[in-house]
Amino acid sequence: MKPIEIGLIGFGTVGTGVVRLLQERAPWLVRRLGAPLVLKKVADLDLARPRPVALDPARLTTRAEDILDDPDIDIVVELMGGLEPAREYVLAAIARGKHVVTANKALLALHGNDILAASAERGVEVAFEAAVCGGVPIILVLRQGLAANHIREMFGILNGTANYILTQMGQGGASYAQALAEAQAQGFAEADPTLDVEGIDTAHKLAILMSLAYCARLEFPAIAVSGIKDLDPLDLQFAREFGYCLKLLAITRDDGERIEARVHPTLIPRDHMLANVEGAFNAVYLTGDAVGPILLYGQGAGMMSTASAVVSDILDLARNLTLGLKRRLPPLGCDAALTSRRIIKPLDEVLTNYYFRFAALDRPGVLSQISGILGKHQISIAAVIQKGREVAGAVPIVMITHEAVEANVKAALAEVDHLPVVSPPTVYYRIEDPHLHAAQI
Amino acid sequence: MKPIEIGLIGFGTVGTGVVRLLQERAPWLVRRLGAPLVLKKVADLDLARPRPVALDPARLTTRAEDILDDPDIDIVVELMGGLEPAREYVLAAIARGKHVVTANKALLALHGNDILAASAERGVEVAFEAAVCGGVPIILVLRQGLAANHIREMFGILNGTANYILTQMGQGGASYAQALAEAQAQGFAEADPTLDVEGIDTAHKLAILMSLAYCARLEFPAIAVSGIKDLDPLDLQFAREFGYCLKLLAITRDDGERIEARVHPTLIPRDHMLANVEGAFNAVYLTGDAVGPILLYGQGAGMMSTASAVVSDILDLARNLTLGLKRRLPPLGCDAALTSRRIIKPLDEVLTNYYFRFAALDRPGVLSQISGILGKHQISIAAVIQKGREVAGAVPIVMITHEAVEANVKAALAEVDHLPVVSPPTVYYRIEDPHLHAAQI
Repeated sequence: MKPIEIGLIGFGTVGTGVVRLLQERAPWLVRRLGAPLVLKKVADLDLARPRPVALDPARLTTRAEDILDDPDIDIVVELMGGLEPAREYVLAAIARGKHVVTANKALLALHGNDILAASAERGVEVAFEAAVCGGVPIILVLRQGLAANHIREMFGILNGTANYILTQMGQGGASYAQALAEAQAQGFAEADPTLDVEGIDTAHKLAILMSLAYCARLEFPAIAVSGIKDLDPLDLQFAREFGYCLKLLAITRDDGERIEARVHPTLIPRDHMLANVEGAFNAVYLTGDAVGPILLYGQGAGMMSTASAVVSDILDLARNLTLGLKRRLPPLGCDAALTSRRIIKPLDEVLTNYYFRFAALDRPGVLSQISGILGKHQISIAAVIQKGREVAGAVPIVMITHEAVEANVKAALAEVDHLPVVSPPTVYYRIEDPHLHAAQI
Repeated sequence: MKPIEIGLIGFGTVGTGVVRLLQERAPWLVRRLGAPLVLKKVADLDLARPRPVALDPARLTTRAEDILDDPDIDIVVELMGGLEPAREYVLAAIARGKHVVTANKALLALHGNDILAASAERGVEVAFEAAVCGGVPIILVLRQGLAANHIREMFGILNGTANYILTQMGQGGASYAQALAEAQAQGFAEADPTLDVEGIDTAHKLAILMSLAYCARLEFPAIAVSGIKDLDPLDLQFAREFGYCLKLLAITRDDGERIEARVHPTLIPRDHMLANVEGAFNAVYLTGDAVGPILLYGQGAGMMSTASAVVSDILDLARNLTLGLKRRLPPLGCDAALTSRRIIKPLDEVLTNYYFRFAALDRPGVLSQISGILGKHQISIAAVIQKGREVAGAVPIVMITHEAVEANVKAALAEVDHLPVVSPPTVYYRIEDPHLHAAQI
């Protein structure tokens, strides 16, 4: 059978993994596909760097155009990352009728609607299993496996760097700075970890998962995001005393009308399936109305894990090519997704449980003043710990609340922080705890 | 677009769930597929039973032939269960050029090679996502998502009934009989639980997963199987003291030459991802050479969860029909799977760690006699607990071994059980513990 010809743009870590899998696994892939996969050209600006795979120098180029302009290349694999010129190359590949495989979550989150519309118009496919959770096939599962379901809610640990740092802080009591340094030393964090620790990378991925879950346009700018940079190990200790651990979660929830979409450090019960997701691992825990709860877990990054996802996408597109199909299944699961919009609930209207840590002077009546303000704003307290430990002259008072509206929480904490007996700012985190929901009903 | 017409054979629990999903989710499914799915006929011997869905009586029949002989029906969904006449109907559907969706793991395990060969010859598809782990899309993940990987090892909790019983025994110290009665009262176990508690259902499912993982013929008869019927709560307690819990696991492992294939109660560390899989839940934990470790977790049974898998299969086949494709992807991931065979390692040659519980008289020298026999058979001890508690006149001595060969274990225990100071039979279970492997290296 006619070989399927592939061009790879970006010969970095994941690109090297893809080359390795295509080389080492060639007979296995032919057996699965019934046709050979030929890596015709690889483009990268830096061809001098030593790489752990051998490749015929005739196949290497510094010019992406050599791939985009090659009429024999059926599938373009974009693994260069970043927004430009990745966007330009992907759109050029689509315009030339080539199928695209990409692992570029930032590109999809920011320009996915345009890219997918262009691919629909040109009748080609864009596949991006590797963009979320590395080799964990969450895209496949949402796009096909759970296609009959309405996804009610979904929680994701989608960034291995942030999860590694939180695991270090939770287990050893390390500070954020120490844990970040350790993550960098271990190769789990980049020199500039901004996208990872500020939750932006997690939000990129959440935007993609939401589109698949709801069959709707990508809505990255509407996602509320906060990261883990300002986390105090003290709050991880208190969380533990209440039976929680703290994770940077991507959260989306469909109330039938609007959807929630947020990324922030979140307290979850220590017996939650996501609580055991440690180090650089990723996981998605979701509830479909038919299937019930589902967890997928695995390595969220890494050369070979991500390459596994890229090559499974290549196989899928190649199979369609061998059958003469241009576009079997739209990238978001249905073509209507590109025109369908879901309204995202503003964070201020979200109803959830909260963790508060007040720094207060150790005087009689302080708790009564604070709880009076909370009550006025319809916030009721589920549990309190008041500890004798002094922190900077004040004593921490830690509370878990029943469900409250975010806007009320902000108003109440602003008022509390004006009390002369309280040292602002009060620390607060959101909680996702099914037991706490149940207890209220 | 022309509707896709479906015939359903078997209007029991899962069949009812499928009817409900197809009815309630019709607009969503049309949106995904671009064509309507029409449930043309439903066959069941018992049409009088009340069911929680309304269906036009004109669509109901007691004769499967009404579906098999209907030239307009494109997809036959077999949800009657059992071997005959399910086998006959499935083969008849294939012979008439219809695609088949089935949840029948026993049928696939025992007659899958014939059924899949017939479907290859006739150029139709057989889909069976619902046959393993209910709505958890493990078939999709093995067949497509991890297609670039060699699966090194796979552990499955594949039977919710057995896992529910073990959870009850482990948490509350219930006896097997008490836990089974509770499972039956809760609707998690049938009146005749044989297939579930003897591990046979788990082995049916393992046979299917192995075929997908290795792209090879189904090899159900070669799987070594033992169940949970004879389990003593005492061993769950001792396991816990060593940091383990006990699960009925499906295990397969590929050493590059031969594969292991076994189903038995297994000790796993309490910090293993599978240790938290409780009650009627199912999970698969596998390691691919590229992707690393992956866990999938969810409800292994139930009306709507299983229906979710059936409808996702229907959607997949329907999409191919709308594109005029007869057979896009072979059921086992590649056509060569039907002729390719993997050799299964006999259980006697398996190398693993063991848990032994001896019932011995509390006399000096007993431990030395026992460990002498073990040493003679190349079995070395990693840990021992000797407790003062008397059980039927004897004292339990519990051991964890380093890796040993099953044949040696059987020979050694036969010899130990002949010692006058030991009350036979010695209880033994296999352990899967990555830490214990690591400790030996």
